[in-house]
Amino acid sequence: MTSHAIRYIRVTPIAFRDPPLLNAAGIHEPWALRSIIEIETDSGRVGINETYGDQSMLDVLAKTAPALIGLSPWDLNAMETRVQALVKPAGLTSEFLGEQISLAPGTHVSKNAAKVSSAFEVAMLDLQGQLAHAPVVDLLGGAARDAVPFSAYLFFKYAEHIGQPYRPDEFGEGLSPAQMVAQARRMIDGYGFKSIKLKAGALPPEQEVATMLALAKAFAGAPLRIDPNANWTVATSLKVVEQLQGVLEYYEDPAPGLDGMAAVAAKLKDLGDVPLATNMVVTDYAEFADNARRGCPVRIVLSDHHYWGGLRTTQQLSRLCQTFDMGLSMHSNSHLGISLTAMTHLAASVPHLAYACDTHYPWQDDEIVQGGRLQFEHGSLRVPRTPGLGVCIDPEALARLHDNYLRCGIRNRDDLGQMRKYEPTFTGKQPRY
Amino acid sequence: MTSHAIRYIRVTPIAFRDPPLLNAAGIHEPWALRSIIEIETDSGRVGINETYGDQSMLDVLAKTAPALIGLSPWDLNAMETRVQALVKPAGLTSEFLGEQISLAPGTHVSKNAAKVSSAFEVAMLDLQGQLAHAPVVDLLGGAARDAVPFSAYLFFKYAEHIGQPYRPDEFGEGLSPAQMVAQARRMIDGYGFKSIKLKAGALPPEQEVATMLALAKAFAGAPLRIDPNANWTVATSLKVVEQLQGVLEYYEDPAPGLDGMAAVAAKLKDLGDVPLATNMVVTDYAEFADNARRGCPVRIVLSDHHYWGGLRTTQQLSRLCQTFDMGLSMHSNSHLGISLTAMTHLAASVPHLAYACDTHYPWQDDEIVQGGRLQFEHGSLRVPRTPGLGVCIDPEALARLHDNYLRCGIRNRDDLGQMRKYEPTFTGKQPRY
Repeated sequence: MTSHAIRYIRVTPIAFRDPPLLNAAGIHEPWALRSIIEIETDSGRVGINETYGDQSMLDVLAKTAPALIGLSPWDLNAMETRVQALVKPAGLTSEFLGEQISLAPGTHVSKNAAKVSSAFEVAMLDLQGQLAHAPVVDLLGGAARDAVPFSAYLFFKYAEHIGQPYRPDEFGEGLSPAQMVAQARRMIDGYGFKSIKLKAGALPPEQEVATMLALAKAFAGAPLRIDPNANWTVATSLKVVEQLQGVLEYYEDPAPGLDGMAAVAAKLKDLGDVPLATNMVVTDYAEFADNARRGCPVRIVLSDHHYWGGLRTTQQLSRLCQTFDMGLSMHSNSHLGISLTAMTHLAASVPHLAYACDTHYPWQDDEIVQGGRLQFEHGSLRVPRTPGLGVCIDPEALARLHDNYLRCGIRNRDDLGQMRKYEPTFTGKQPRY
Repeated sequence: MTSHAIRYIRVTPIAFRDPPLLNAAGIHEPWALRSIIEIETDSGRVGINETYGDQSMLDVLAKTAPALIGLSPWDLNAMETRVQALVKPAGLTSEFLGEQISLAPGTHVSKNAAKVSSAFEVAMLDLQGQLAHAPVVDLLGGAARDAVPFSAYLFFKYAEHIGQPYRPDEFGEGLSPAQMVAQARRMIDGYGFKSIKLKAGALPPEQEVATMLALAKAFAGAPLRIDPNANWTVATSLKVVEQLQGVLEYYEDPAPGLDGMAAVAAKLKDLGDVPLATNMVVTDYAEFADNARRGCPVRIVLSDHHYWGGLRTTQQLSRLCQTFDMGLSMHSNSHLGISLTAMTHLAASVPHLAYACDTHYPWQDDEIVQGGRLQFEHGSLRVPRTPGLGVCIDPEALARLHDNYLRCGIRNRDDLGQMRKYEPTFTGKQPRY
């Protein structure tokens, strides 16, 4: 009988161009990091995945990968047990990160076990699907929808990076309301998105409110969201939501911490009762329980399989949300097509995920998968029906993107440090407004 | 390409001998009902399962089965959606059941959608495993343990049924502490169980306490549990637990309702702090949330995939329990080897399920699966490694057990009515003590 035991795991860090996008922590660097996982079986099959590419992540992937040799691709429980045994839950490998912890939970070392489990789980599910002749979505219970809607994810941005490392992107400057409406128009024309999300917390709140009102006018009827990444005080959060009454689908992470969110929630009933959403204060199960014990001030969780522990774990998060009458949406970081495909399989398999998912995909112009950039139809991606994930690595693209990594000099995401190149006195202190 | 679409679903009610076991609601009738599910694909494969056999269950199975024709065995989400559309969550098909609702949540019509989904899910997972050449446990994330421990499930009982419908069972009368120690000895000698559970709430509490103390003495070191099925007042519950200090692994459903359990829990800290367990007040996700909102007076849930919605749903329940620092055990009703095998796959795939599972299996002497009665080793069942569930139906046994069903005259479980044959004035009013 053919052995499908895991015989080799390769982790390749890559880097790809990322525009100068503004956020609460600072600004994106010119290169975004990811890593590509390839898990090979004795039978010569290869399962793939894409995840974080920061040094601390590469360290824990390197530490854990050898422990999986000999496992069957079906042994997800055993994989998790081995990963947990090797990766301490608390941050032992790095002092790095400070303010960025909450902005990008995926970069925090406290999530290492969940992140590593997720990294391997998706590649093992890709192998399972190949062995079972079934798409990953079927391994997750089958498609509740044939296509998964994503949202137009708008960022305030500069026209080009400091130092001009490469040709500017096509979106141009995005600072004024008119520029942001143009950005949305360009993105919606290109992809067909029906929902719009604005990454806020970067400019003075009145400018961001004006942008939202301009978007609401220009795209009447489109669900709109704003996400200042906890860069507002409770008072500012309430002032903004009052100005945006009738405009918001949900209100994502206005104020810092569960205390801040609860303080905002306590006043929202009289301000249109828009639900609070988060990817900052409910980022793991312990935080989920905290929010539930406090009566669910946060009513929507933005899931992200990359740091919640994987696709199956995210389905369990969906059950938790249903149990406590909470909604479920999906968060993203800068990523390429393998992550996007995994997100699509997952979202298709979770009936309760009723919001258009976030994706940074339109901000990238490169790809790692064979066939190049994935094609959206009316703002949605069709769920692959071929076995496994349904995408393969383009070896030339992998070599090129790995070469980017070797040359770019970035080893850990640092939006704060990058912003200081523009504004040396920028502190990153939050909440800023 | 071969089509594996579902082309036919057969539901066969069966009945098998069941001893005169006493419980809070009354006494077991001489025949226990189940139904056997067979789902056949266009390609001629058959996936099987075993579930409840009461008339109301047969009604909803008959109503929903045709809606699944054409689905792929992978389409679990679509199956659930179709079942939910056809089965109203509230009890619309029967006024039957009264006091038995809480004793046996699997018989309650409010669980119909979850029960029907579970009935079909397991058979579809059996098909998936056959298609993928993987045991069901692998479809659930792989085996966290190679063998699943079960407990010796003791019942107070009479020597034989009223009317003597067939030859008495081998366990004999079980009423005095000495008889119950002998019952435990017989069961442990035969199966190797390491844990003991006493079904209580049937005799005066002092007699049940004396039995527990006799068991604790005879089987020193064996984890012991008692389950009076909410047949005790809060005062009685507290008096009993005081008398059993140092004896109990957990304390299952002493008092009625979440209010009763919470009142007991409030006093337990000073009485040995034994955790409360339940299969009566946390029987679905809404009840789980109620318990969590009240600070988790119940600390262990006895899961049962037959009424929680299936194997995957029970894994989600495990995540819920972990999230709220609760334990997980497993409940059973009278069942045969298909249910026992599904329970074994499930328990093996749930690392958090750390208690020996309940099973009524030693009380049955018949079987539906090829090869006859399943063999325990040291109180545990090995997890099958063959594709799917790893058990098949014995056609002759199915015919014989269906014939039992046709002849036995029982169409709905009625422990109360049966007890009235012994004691015409028996009211079944709870709590009795």
